[in-house]
Amino acid sequence: MDILTNIRSKRPLIHCITNYVTVNDVANALLSFGAAPVMADDEREVEQMVSIANALVINIGTLNERTINAMIKAGKKANELKIPVVLDPVGVGATELRTDTAFKLIDNIEFSLIRANISEAGVLAGGFGRSRGVDASSEDIGSGTPSAISYAKAINKRTGAIVAVSGKTDVVTDGVKISLCENGHEAMSRISGTGCMLSALLGAFLASDYDKFTAVSEGVATMAICGERAFRKTKEMGCAMSMFRTLLIDGFFEIDDEILEMSKMVTTINA
Amino acid sequence: MDILTNIRSKRPLIHCITNYVTVNDVANALLSFGAAPVMADDEREVEQMVSIANALVINIGTLNERTINAMIKAGKKANELKIPVVLDPVGVGATELRTDTAFKLIDNIEFSLIRANISEAGVLAGGFGRSRGVDASSEDIGSGTPSAISYAKAINKRTGAIVAVSGKTDVVTDGVKISLCENGHEAMSRISGTGCMLSALLGAFLASDYDKFTAVSEGVATMAICGERAFRKTKEMGCAMSMFRTLLIDGFFEIDDEILEMSKMVTTINA
Amino acid sequence: MDILTNIRSKRPLIHCITNYVTVNDVANALLSFGAAPVMADDEREVEQMVSIANALVINIGTLNERTINAMIKAGKKANELKIPVVLDPVGVGATELRTDTAFKLIDNIEFSLIRANISEAGVLAGGFGRSRGVDASSEDIGSGTPSAISYAKAINKRTGAIVAVSGKTDVVTDGVKISLCENGHEAMSRISGTGCMLSALLGAFLASDYDKFTAVSEGVATMAICGERAFRKTKEMGCAMSMFRTLLIDGFFEIDDEILEMSKMVTTINA
Repeated sequence: MDILTNIRSKRPLIHCITNYVTVNDVANALLSFGAAPVMADDEREVEQMVSIANALVINIGTLNERTINAMIKAGKKANELKIPVVLDPVGVGATELRTDTAFKLIDNIEFSLIRANISEAGVLAGGFGRSRGVDASSEDIGSGTPSAISYAKAINKRTGAIVAVSGKTDVVTDGVKISLCENGHEAMSRISGTGCMLSALLGAFLASDYDKFTAVSEGVATMAICGERAFRKTKEMGCAMSMFRTLLIDGFFEIDDEILEMSKMVTTINA
Repeated sequence: MDILTNIRSKRPLIHCITNYVTVNDVANALLSFGAAPVMADDEREVEQMVSIANALVINIGTLNERTINAMIKAGKKANELKIPVVLDPVGVGATELRTDTAFKLIDNIEFSLIRANISEAGVLAGGFGRSRGVDASSEDIGSGTPSAISYAKAINKRTGAIVAVSGKTDVVTDGVKISLCENGHEAMSRISGTGCMLSALLGAFLASDYDKFTAVSEGVATMAICGERAFRKTKEMGCAMSMFRTLLIDGFFEIDDEILEMSKMVTTINA
Repeated sequence: MDILTNIRSKRPLIHCITNYVTVNDVANALLSFGAAPVMADDEREVEQMVSIANALVINIGTLNERTINAMIKAGKKANELKIPVVLDPVGVGATELRTDTAFKLIDNIEFSLIRANISEAGVLAGGFGRSRGVDASSEDIGSGTPSAISYAKAINKRTGAIVAVSGKTDVVTDGVKISLCENGHEAMSRISGTGCMLSALLGAFLASDYDKFTAVSEGVATMAICGERAFRKTKEMGCAMSMFRTLLIDGFFEIDDEILEMSKMVTTINA
């Protein structure tokens, strides 16, 4: 069964501990795609909630003491039950709280996937060589695909997680294979929540029957193609960024395995 | 005066203590319909806020210690002032925290209305016969209209509240009369917030001059018809789930008493 | 360089400590316009976050103990670093918590701008003549442009902040000059978040190279014109309030200096 068909036949339940800025987009993205979202972040319920979920997605976009503890409890429980866990280290490097928390999560939880933009990936990659709690300075952070690849490899080496770095070219690596995807559209950076939605959708892809690297690569390509298609439709309607968001989420419903096959994704073996 | 005209002439203020996933949809649904939303969940202000409101809507979608206390304070104050109170027990049964909280709220607050989907209604109906804090097991939860009716009756008997159970056929009962509504569209379950918006809108219906059972029944029919109409328009536009959400909220503005009269709602006397 | 071009060339980072009802609209409004949002409200990170921002926007729409402390810390730090700070006193007067908090913020932070609707402005203007913590009674609050002007002047006199009062005619004063803007559309009051989005956008305008009074006046006119244009397009599409919201946020992307020049804004010198 092709991957989108496979995921949708399972209707996986994705437990998200996420930020309150884009939480609604995340819920609607999952529903539109054919998965089921559940949001719960109270310490007293996250272990029970994650136990009935098919994946856990931890997003540090709006941290506070209460939710940090919930993230760790949920992540440990998910590890115990072998449920895949995704980390989206939103804004890591901007403040010590975010940097400390990202590394605290990485120290305590075994992540199946870490998905970040290139600045965040640079901070994580740089942070492993430093004392914790110190931000990687911005000069350390390169741009472009070669940097993205080297950050992804460095983070993979230290965590064992598959790493996906979003950018003009999206990079996915498991330490052995690398996928590069050229699809996508810059409009995706002009709305809030694209990254958060992608991380949550990748939770659903990890709940498929496919191997994790393939699942993540196909998930990244799915988002990129939906972005292109939504931009085209936005232009046809004579609209702009807010309509683009609506049409992007619509696209998660409309995309099928045939459309996905047209992605410009290339996978190579690369140690 | 017909009911929608009646509600809109009052522009009731609806105080919502609700989850952060769909709170924006709830606010916009109320505004679009012609009511006014106010969201406040700090213990120190909920009693004052509910005192100026025409209805209180309590939704347990994203619980935490802070908001549970605020819910109880607000609910007790609303009871004291004879302001209608709605409970939406989102996800009850999924975790002990949710189940315990739902029953704690029911023990402490007199609800005018409890609105739930069929799984949640099954948990509540089952829970009255058990020690508190134990979830109804999923085997206890039936599906289909006969189950929905029996759950609604059981919850009504124990709480005195009008009970509305949403599903393919929506069921409303006050213990004497039963309304069944065949309108609606399955797309409503493919977006986040349909249930939350309905519960909030029913707060506005309870603030009308109509008797509570009629108000809730008409409110349920209003949502169902808006769902059908929004789906039709979504198809005409060649769009999918996210546009459906926009058009559903648009529909709360557009629906009038003449459109509402076309609902397939049947009310019968049934002890 | 004209003002919109100037702001967009800087892509200012706007740190928002805001309510969870409209936070997503605020983020998307800023992104659509060409600014960058960052939301962070934990006490432990707000000082670092505001240090990298170009403006701070404090919105009291859903207050709690945790965020009040964060607001004060962030505001003091912004003052120290001479970063402009905006206050949106949402719902001040509705509860003692809101009124006390608004005045506590005003006592502790030097605001560049206070933006309010006329009821909120009336409460603030009235409150300075009273003991703190007591709401201005609603009888004190007038309506119409003369009241808006007198409230704006009173708040400016006590705080030194530029004051913008939104209404049918928008009023901006710095104590010497007054701008009146006749643009806008009443549909703007039928969606959630118009005021919150305006306050955040004004943060971006304050990060321009223009003098603060001009920046705020032009920002107010920008929102008003976008409201008119969005309403026109909504009607053309045969849609209602939720589509209006989408098209309003689209409009922040589309508006340019040439369109802005057509605003019906009049500035006069007036002590």
